[in-house]
Amino acid sequence: MNILIVYAHPEPQSLNGSLKDFAITHLRTAGHNVQVSDLYAMQWKAQLDARDNIAPSADIPFHPSLDSQRAFKNGTQSADIVAEQEKLRWADTVIFQFPLWWFSMPAIMKGWVDRVYAYGFAYGVGEHSDTHWGDRYGEGAMKGKRAMLMVSTGGWESHYSPRGINGAIDDVLFPIQHGVLHYPGFTVLPPLVLYRTGRTDAARFNQICDELATRLDTLESTTPIAFRHQNSGEYEIPSLTLKPEIAPGKTGFAAHLK
Amino acid sequence: MNILIVYAHPEPQSLNGSLKDFAITHLRTAGHNVQVSDLYAMQWKAQLDARDNIAPSADIPFHPSLDSQRAFKNGTQSADIVAEQEKLRWADTVIFQFPLWWFSMPAIMKGWVDRVYAYGFAYGVGEHSDTHWGDRYGEGAMKGKRAMLMVSTGGWESHYSPRGINGAIDDVLFPIQHGVLHYPGFTVLPPLVLYRTGRTDAARFNQICDELATRLDTLESTTPIAFRHQNSGEYEIPSLTLKPEIAPGKTGFAAHLK
Repeated sequence: MNILIVYAHPEPQSLNGSLKDFAITHLRTAGHNVQVSDLYAMQWKAQLDARDNIAPSADIPFHPSLDSQRAFKNGTQSADIVAEQEKLRWADTVIFQFPLWWFSMPAIMKGWVDRVYAYGFAYGVGEHSDTHWGDRYGEGAMKGKRAMLMVSTGGWESHYSPRGINGAIDDVLFPIQHGVLHYPGFTVLPPLVLYRTGRTDAARFNQICDELATRLDTLESTTPIAFRHQNSGEYEIPSLTLKPEIAPGKTGFAAHLK
Repeated sequence: MNILIVYAHPEPQSLNGSLKDFAITHLRTAGHNVQVSDLYAMQWKAQLDARDNIAPSADIPFHPSLDSQRAFKNGTQSADIVAEQEKLRWADTVIFQFPLWWFSMPAIMKGWVDRVYAYGFAYGVGEHSDTHWGDRYGEGAMKGKRAMLMVSTGGWESHYSPRGINGAIDDVLFPIQHGVLHYPGFTVLPPLVLYRTGRTDAARFNQICDELATRLDTLESTTPIAFRHQNSGEYEIPSLTLKPEIAPGKTGFAAHLK
């Protein structure tokens, strides 16, 4: 398989750095092709702005999505964005590895999403009709590819349990897993979440590597998260609310799981 | 009142730019003191890294939270971080204004949170005991200050309704409102969310300005979101799960509302 690791941690000599290195070696030893987007090492530009189009319109104000659309269509996206899109096309599976900072991804990785997910590439694709509202949430450019989050957090597992104060981890990650991965068509695998990583001794590190190895060895066979598909008949179009007979009365993120 | 607007949009001639200008004028006319952190205009550095401590330790690897703690304690934080912390201390109310990109804030604003929320400032404060697990989720440096999100999105309101495909807007914003604002002690006001902003004509713009003006005029009187306080007796310590008698059987983000 072709596997892309999108990785964001500022320190190579960190738990995340060590696990990234372990994953690369493990995957290559198993015969996979691996590319890594090490966003800090690449000095990835985090902020989306007018410079993302190398041929901006001089006469009209910059517009984040319309400029993205023009640049993608006209082949005038900045080179760093094009390179990442190429890696995504190449990949069969994408692993996003990051420490959970303030209940989301580090800014540099958010900036990867903001900029690489161009209009015409990751959104704004497909027909809009009475039965189909764009290729998204189960369809799109990433259809057929798998994705998995690998997330470390200093917090305790109980703090992220169904009644934990931080919110259940599945809910905390929903905007990413459903909104960033399922949206452009990825098949999303359950995340590998590491808790209390402030206290990682050698024994715990080895245990984590074992757990990670198992997840890496089963990327192709792991049962994905059963997010509903937008255009499969379960949602009203164009309101995009669940039809009354689907999970009747249920609300919240979990309603979007089969 | 002293009001800080933390604002992230790359184009001054945008709906967000116009609304930011409207808010500043409206608030100043009402007699408030206003400061604006216009993150794009300031060329805010988004990525948290070793340069955030101007006197880094040469002999040990960079550690995001421990370096932040040392820099905050020793007075060696980079000047841009110190300036934002001073604005937060000065403010009675903070408005965070941004377009919702991929179900969260733009990278440049996430980087404001990642970097300004230092260890010892926004987290890692207060005693940890059998009855008190740090000053957080209702306590902390921002206690007594109000905060409000002002968010624009291209999506439809129904897509963010309780059974809408994007997830209910309150859930989508929970990691920010609860995790970024309530956590360091802010009293969080209901958000001002603008939908379908891709289609904003003059009539709609005037309507939005009226709505915004009303929200700005009632910043001190608006009933806040009733997030539970961590150390008020509703959570087990240290597991930080809701006690069985609190919202019995309930899970999901909404369980953390009174």
